[in-house]
Amino acid sequence: MPDVEAIIKKYLPIEEGNISKLVEAMNYSVLAGGKRIRPIIMQEAYKLFGGTGKAIEPFMAAIEMIHNYSLIHDDLPPMDNDVIRRGKPSTWKAYGEATAILAGDALQTFAFETATKAFELSDRPDLVVRAIRVLAQKSGVDGMASGQDVDVQLAGQPISKEVLKDIYKLKTGCLIEAAAMIGAIMAGADDQEISIIRRAAADMGLAFQIRDDILDVTGDSATTGKTTGLDERNVKTTYVTLYGVEEAQQIVKDLSNAAIEKINKLPGEKTFFLNLINQLEVRNK
Amino acid sequence: MPDVEAIIKKYLPIEEGNISKLVEAMNYSVLAGGKRIRPIIMQEAYKLFGGTGKAIEPFMAAIEMIHNYSLIHDDLPPMDNDVIRRGKPSTWKAYGEATAILAGDALQTFAFETATKAFELSDRPDLVVRAIRVLAQKSGVDGMASGQDVDVQLAGQPISKEVLKDIYKLKTGCLIEAAAMIGAIMAGADDQEISIIRRAAADMGLAFQIRDDILDVTGDSATTGKTTGLDERNVKTTYVTLYGVEEAQQIVKDLSNAAIEKINKLPGEKTFFLNLINQLEVRNK
Repeated sequence: MPDVEAIIKKYLPIEEGNISKLVEAMNYSVLAGGKRIRPIIMQEAYKLFGGTGKAIEPFMAAIEMIHNYSLIHDDLPPMDNDVIRRGKPSTWKAYGEATAILAGDALQTFAFETATKAFELSDRPDLVVRAIRVLAQKSGVDGMASGQDVDVQLAGQPISKEVLKDIYKLKTGCLIEAAAMIGAIMAGADDQEISIIRRAAADMGLAFQIRDDILDVTGDSATTGKTTGLDERNVKTTYVTLYGVEEAQQIVKDLSNAAIEKINKLPGEKTFFLNLINQLEVRNK
Repeated sequence: MPDVEAIIKKYLPIEEGNISKLVEAMNYSVLAGGKRIRPIIMQEAYKLFGGTGKAIEPFMAAIEMIHNYSLIHDDLPPMDNDVIRRGKPSTWKAYGEATAILAGDALQTFAFETATKAFELSDRPDLVVRAIRVLAQKSGVDGMASGQDVDVQLAGQPISKEVLKDIYKLKTGCLIEAAAMIGAIMAGADDQEISIIRRAAADMGLAFQIRDDILDVTGDSATTGKTTGLDERNVKTTYVTLYGVEEAQQIVKDLSNAAIEKINKLPGEKTFFLNLINQLEVRNK
């Protein structure tokens, strides 16, 4: 399979000839990098269930577009008011607020347009429709967008362990669930298999977000590519502020083990997926 | 066929049990009313090509959600900074900027989720995918969103007749094209038929927007439900400022006739569609 970065780039909108600056602003965020964890999980889930064709590729690009549209909007002044993202000015800082709003909007739209391109690469239009639905369900009002809203509503207020877990599950977990589910759906997995990988991905998503909290405290900004210590400066409630670093890392370990246990119930070649879970648990960036 | 208003309401997200205020903010805009011109055109195009089932209904709701998400974001302070929409506080004024950004985002997502519901109502998943693609193409960076961006970029600058036409075609025309195309696609129209109705809808979209410009000057706010005279107060370039009321209305008439000419090339029962075009030409609200 071609590498994830090349797949994402292949599906980005083309800048030339367009009458607005919008495409440039859309691509600016996606091309600034990132761990590409969602398309990687999708690709691994696809392979795990025996998927071999290219029909997964448009969805790999689409989910990264959805992730990036949410980052563009999350950085806006009425939201998190972040001026730096991945070591560069955030989209609104580089292009202005109005264009950043529109670039996020159009990137979301383009994600769904891109997802429909799987139709020409698959002989199962029913699976394409089902996968588009999962992408929408998990990123919308019952998923990611709802998590963002709760996060915004509670800004500056004390947050309990239970609520923080809910926010992380919605804000980060849901889109990672979508990644795994879409990989499985497009590979033709059955409902029980999709349910197992969805629950494993939910564990992974939560572990991923908690590991982010830990790296904000223990990480080296030269390695992570992020300013560390931000959460403390912003007086943000995280797993580290609620549990401390050691207990937080134990939760990451427990979640990783729970994900591994679920994956081990599935048939097929699981090595890559299990390695991925182990990498996420100890990652330093 | 059930009435358009009932179809739209049937597909709105359900408010109870949700942990955020987001659903309420999403529905606030859609339920505030509007002419429902996009779902009406879609329904008429569907009937024109012999469509009879319910498979068009999710798309009728979806296109109205896309339209409303764009209004929610268009009203935001960094965009048009509008505090009133359809006689009520605009979404950001009622719910705050952050929730308005997220409500627009989630309403767009929900539009695509809703569109996938046509899958269970149709035996042609290939047409469903094609219609979803059209909805995305015409509302994104090659359509509506691009028109919004050009409009924002040129705010306060002199706009030529040619550029204003381009903005209207993108900002309003493209989504009205999508409405007609999706109606035709879901009814099983062939490519030539889809192309004819698309071009007729482009004429209608432009005529619709120019008629709006005229009603801003000549309309009675009790009838239109809008504050009139806004364009003059905002020193906005419109067809009225560039052509005057009389010539602008002549352009509306010419565009309506051009649309009628195209529709008359199509087979089938055209009365409803032709009546619709005539209504749009002389509408007072």
